[in-house]
Amino acid sequence: MPNSLGHLFRITTFGESHGGGVGVIVDGCPPRIPLAAADIQVDLDRRRPGQSKIVTPRKESDTCEILSGVSDGQTLGTPIAILVRNEDQRPEAYKEMETLYRPSHADYTYQAKYGVRAVQGGGRASARETIGRVAAGAVAQQVFRKLVPGLEILAYVSQVHHLIAPTQVENITFKEIESNIVRWPDSHDAERVIALIEQVRSEGDSVGGVVSVIVRGAPVGLGEPVFDKLEADLAKAMLSLPASKGFEIGSGFAGTRLRGSEHNDAFINVGGRVRTATNRSGGIQGGISNGEEIVFRVAFKPTATIAQAQQTVSISGEPAELKARGRHDPCVLPRAVPMVEAMTRLVLVDHWLRQRAIAD
Amino acid sequence: MPNSLGHLFRITTFGESHGGGVGVIVDGCPPRIPLAAADIQVDLDRRRPGQSKIVTPRKESDTCEILSGVSDGQTLGTPIAILVRNEDQRPEAYKEMETLYRPSHADYTYQAKYGVRAVQGGGRASARETIGRVAAGAVAQQVFRKLVPGLEILAYVSQVHHLIAPTQVENITFKEIESNIVRWPDSHDAERVIALIEQVRSEGDSVGGVVSVIVRGAPVGLGEPVFDKLEADLAKAMLSLPASKGFEIGSGFAGTRLRGSEHNDAFINVGGRVRTATNRSGGIQGGISNGEEIVFRVAFKPTATIAQAQQTVSISGEPAELKARGRHDPCVLPRAVPMVEAMTRLVLVDHWLRQRAIAD
Amino acid sequence: MPNSLGHLFRITTFGESHGGGVGVIVDGCPPRIPLAAADIQVDLDRRRPGQSKIVTPRKESDTCEILSGVSDGQTLGTPIAILVRNEDQRPEAYKEMETLYRPSHADYTYQAKYGVRAVQGGGRASARETIGRVAAGAVAQQVFRKLVPGLEILAYVSQVHHLIAPTQVENITFKEIESNIVRWPDSHDAERVIALIEQVRSEGDSVGGVVSVIVRGAPVGLGEPVFDKLEADLAKAMLSLPASKGFEIGSGFAGTRLRGSEHNDAFINVGGRVRTATNRSGGIQGGISNGEEIVFRVAFKPTATIAQAQQTVSISGEPAELKARGRHDPCVLPRAVPMVEAMTRLVLVDHWLRQRAIAD
Amino acid sequence: MPNSLGHLFRITTFGESHGGGVGVIVDGCPPRIPLAAADIQVDLDRRRPGQSKIVTPRKESDTCEILSGVSDGQTLGTPIAILVRNEDQRPEAYKEMETLYRPSHADYTYQAKYGVRAVQGGGRASARETIGRVAAGAVAQQVFRKLVPGLEILAYVSQVHHLIAPTQVENITFKEIESNIVRWPDSHDAERVIALIEQVRSEGDSVGGVVSVIVRGAPVGLGEPVFDKLEADLAKAMLSLPASKGFEIGSGFAGTRLRGSEHNDAFINVGGRVRTATNRSGGIQGGISNGEEIVFRVAFKPTATIAQAQQTVSISGEPAELKARGRHDPCVLPRAVPMVEAMTRLVLVDHWLRQRAIAD
Repeated sequence: MPNSLGHLFRITTFGESHGGGVGVIVDGCPPRIPLAAADIQVDLDRRRPGQSKIVTPRKESDTCEILSGVSDGQTLGTPIAILVRNEDQRPEAYKEMETLYRPSHADYTYQAKYGVRAVQGGGRASARETIGRVAAGAVAQQVFRKLVPGLEILAYVSQVHHLIAPTQVENITFKEIESNIVRWPDSHDAERVIALIEQVRSEGDSVGGVVSVIVRGAPVGLGEPVFDKLEADLAKAMLSLPASKGFEIGSGFAGTRLRGSEHNDAFINVGGRVRTATNRSGGIQGGISNGEEIVFRVAFKPTATIAQAQQTVSISGEPAELKARGRHDPCVLPRAVPMVEAMTRLVLVDHWLRQRAIAD
Repeated sequence: MPNSLGHLFRITTFGESHGGGVGVIVDGCPPRIPLAAADIQVDLDRRRPGQSKIVTPRKESDTCEILSGVSDGQTLGTPIAILVRNEDQRPEAYKEMETLYRPSHADYTYQAKYGVRAVQGGGRASARETIGRVAAGAVAQQVFRKLVPGLEILAYVSQVHHLIAPTQVENITFKEIESNIVRWPDSHDAERVIALIEQVRSEGDSVGGVVSVIVRGAPVGLGEPVFDKLEADLAKAMLSLPASKGFEIGSGFAGTRLRGSEHNDAFINVGGRVRTATNRSGGIQGGISNGEEIVFRVAFKPTATIAQAQQTVSISGEPAELKARGRHDPCVLPRAVPMVEAMTRLVLVDHWLRQRAIAD
Repeated sequence: MPNSLGHLFRITTFGESHGGGVGVIVDGCPPRIPLAAADIQVDLDRRRPGQSKIVTPRKESDTCEILSGVSDGQTLGTPIAILVRNEDQRPEAYKEMETLYRPSHADYTYQAKYGVRAVQGGGRASARETIGRVAAGAVAQQVFRKLVPGLEILAYVSQVHHLIAPTQVENITFKEIESNIVRWPDSHDAERVIALIEQVRSEGDSVGGVVSVIVRGAPVGLGEPVFDKLEADLAKAMLSLPASKGFEIGSGFAGTRLRGSEHNDAFINVGGRVRTATNRSGGIQGGISNGEEIVFRVAFKPTATIAQAQQTVSISGEPAELKARGRHDPCVLPRAVPMVEAMTRLVLVDHWLRQRAIAD
Repeated sequence: MPNSLGHLFRITTFGESHGGGVGVIVDGCPPRIPLAAADIQVDLDRRRPGQSKIVTPRKESDTCEILSGVSDGQTLGTPIAILVRNEDQRPEAYKEMETLYRPSHADYTYQAKYGVRAVQGGGRASARETIGRVAAGAVAQQVFRKLVPGLEILAYVSQVHHLIAPTQVENITFKEIESNIVRWPDSHDAERVIALIEQVRSEGDSVGGVVSVIVRGAPVGLGEPVFDKLEADLAKAMLSLPASKGFEIGSGFAGTRLRGSEHNDAFINVGGRVRTATNRSGGIQGGISNGEEIVFRVAFKPTATIAQAQQTVSISGEPAELKARGRHDPCVLPRAVPMVEAMTRLVLVDHWLRQRAIAD
């Protein structure tokens, strides 16, 4: 259904940018998983506005409350409802949005689809919707911590506009990523990215980029071979994030320029385990994880909200000029990292449960 | 579920490359849609092996039978089951596959996931599985023909290895695409692509490429704004195709190098209709179609089956050399076109029905 | 999924009897439906403890808050989240439940299934879970008020223990049902039922009974002909209610003693409309509504919680005697009426939307 | 979806009484389950017309073919498609059905819902649709044989019209049930039932009755506590069968006349295992199996097709008289037994897989 994702570990998010709040119900979480609000808050804080000088300065604490599904610090097997109240609502900031469609936003399409829309702050199309996803991803992470402790999911910004991170995949660590405000994999190289983002902001503009993901220690056998291929579900999860425009797994688009003899991953026996000599498959073959690192990339467009004047039309069809007054991110990438991480966790935990059901 | 796709127009495919046959059940097709086996066969023939000198020479007629759901030439509203019998089964061609894992195929991962696998011809991971998809896509097409006659879905090969089609989107026609065996948008330019594919085949190798899609005349308002965004469901559908490695919508990965001021699509009033001056959004905003052309691209890797010797391991873990003896496609792209087309139709018809349920 | 119901109008409930609260997300409600908290509260009040002298005296106001999905008094097409905070939590009342399994309650089965359970007040198995259902049913009712105004769903208590309501279906009105605290269809006859329930309560015991339902003005064509037959989905919805033990549609179990020649409903032409002379089918034929009144009955067992001492075992397996100290309903029937009504609305609204998707 | 059932072990049936055939896809069956066509045929033969003198004499061999999902005698984990070709099609027998609505059949409601219907033999509403269910149930049975060998599901006819089987639940065996053509639990008592059915047939009439089910050896912990309660899913499965009108679990409707003190099942410790002294719960508490026998009953109406003249209207609305000429069952109960059995298996195997996914 429109606002749900997952087959066994199923989440349903709710909420608009304005109104009572946003949140999520996680249905299908196994019982007896240690879980406290603090486990969720740590990820919400990584997603939060105002966390650094290169993101939107909006002031929202995004404090979560677990409404159900947890007792004595562990999950009950029942639905886990998590609520974050809305704060810092400044309706006047959105005055013009009532009458003008913001370019490359969802104002027009919501109006066309539903015949009505929440006019404040983007409503359901606001990035606040991802709070529920990140909260649910934190629950998934707790499942893995207890039951698949060797699994590690790393997301990081690998490109901002024309700047590309000089990455050696084997050296990337969560600590390094989190040590700089861009979430760049090499903190020594992060200053030039920060400088670019600040420059862009000062010009009232925005930039896009790429988030890359490495999953280490994924079990072999996750993914369903036809429609619910692991990469298909990852692609859907990533393209469901606001502002994402592309997904590629393993060799991706660059792989289209290789020959089969260059592209195939030879099988080798490494200490009794079947492995591949290279990883152009990106850790997935025939839709099923093969035990190698799962690697993929997600493209994000430049933030649609910019401070420069733009051409648009009003809801009555009149040509008009719009100049955004809301506070916004000059670059969504740093805050997209925990979102991508969460979506990856959600896809993996669901497939992991599905595999448990049929495996001996 | 693993072998089903869609929420209201729901398909379930079945079948391995060997055994009784392959096919699909389409559940949720509206009643009173004109449908005959011939409507399906025309697309199956475009997907069929042996259709030209640049695809696999396997001889399979892929003749379909409609088992149910149709009476007097129109759909009944009940499940439409379509069966294609398997032919040309040459078990000896797959002798080595019983004991060796083919590189970059699904042999190893199926074995790891299920503890068993069909050893002939790839089993469920065979491209024959896509017969069910193409057949279902033909049913979707009949729905559109009757109920959304202005909708046109065009898929074509826009890149093979390093060769890129010189496309002007507005000039692309179905007739032109189908007039050459590559399904290249400009038939005058197709010979160099055919020559490359023949060259690669003669070297026992394979190449990949890109399929591009243009959807003209899509209704405004299709797509659900959160997880089932139209581009998210398209991404899943495309990444669920064999050999696909990437998906991008509108500006895609290239858009990550633009600034917001360059990337945003200004709204304009064209003859009383809200339109965009540019189409970097690719026809979808906030997950919902905006009435512009829906444009996206799908990356396909070079065919994993090649005639050259490759390093691998046996099912008992011994190093081994594999030289494929089955007949294969040097380039999957020409046959991928009707598959991509079918998946696009399936996603769109499902969302179109979903929108009918809530619209006035 | 375990805590969700419906295919297009899909609800997910959450919450335990103790903790932050209980509630529901309604996903798939059409946009532009008038909705305010008061529309929901009126039904919650009919479900509420303490509403009369024959129900549990627990003090819970069950005040609802709409967290999302509504703006300016109408639905947005986005998820409607509704929250009711828990109150009147008296953990000491449930002291013994920590160590003893209550007979015919879910304590033992939850523990066996999950390896953990919320020990206070029944947790997720508490009747408080039905708050989310009743709230969602009120939303469904608003959809019908606007879009199918002729539809009327009446639920009433038709039997309490051995007392049977003298009903003439055509005379039953909502007003009459709500005019007495039993929700008996004939208020002049209600006193003897009230007396029975009070007598039973004074003896520390409980009684069961039957809720009957009449749906007037249901559109023709609702229901799917195979697994999702309208009566099948109604049966599931009713058997999912706490304490329900049986469901019958139309002639039901009594119909098993008729012959076909007595049971068949002859078709007649009434003013140009195809109708049936009798209604043993209960308004549904082949799983699809035929435009006659939909009539069915739901059996409820006597409340499991009684004030008398009962034999049980402790969680460590020791024989023990349990005497409930919590406050409870001597008869669940009066409060079951709005629950049955809500479940009926939810099934009907979902099928009504499904039919809209395929109908011309 | 309309023609699918189950969440992890998911079946989709297809087919009309006339046309290419009927069948089912089973998606989600675990791999490495022994399965051959003969395992399915044995149950299809118990469902088959013409099996005895008290069922319809139609001649259909109902021979099944496994099209996919099985290799070397065991399941692959991929979809299992099963096809039964239609035979004995005598269109002339259904001549009148083209223009007349048969009373208490689905002719009118299909026409009203879809605006079209298969006019021969009931189309999708034919009992032939249950072939797919019975075939899928046989697959489920193979799963249990291998993985839950202690599970036994017994269905039998416990009532035909006014005749009631003198049952002692503990004595009922599959062998005894199958030893007589009624599937009566006491073969010594079966003759009077056979005589009644033959009498009714000779009068051109039909009778209904009740099928009872006992599940022995069900694991503890099956069922989801809210909407997917085990009894709720059983109720849906049973009410989805043609001609069924009611469902009751454990004490059922009779339990509404007991007091709580009489109805509650006291817990006792039997050899270290928590059990109940009585079983009015019917083996399910709070929606979850408690390890006792699961017992329920299903009401079936008298067959709608009778040889006597009946009043009806034509598709153009004219009053008319219908006298069925097709061959039919004077009593559906004997053939309903394998259908009820199959549906029970399907519900249980699905919940068993669901529980595997979350259990340690």
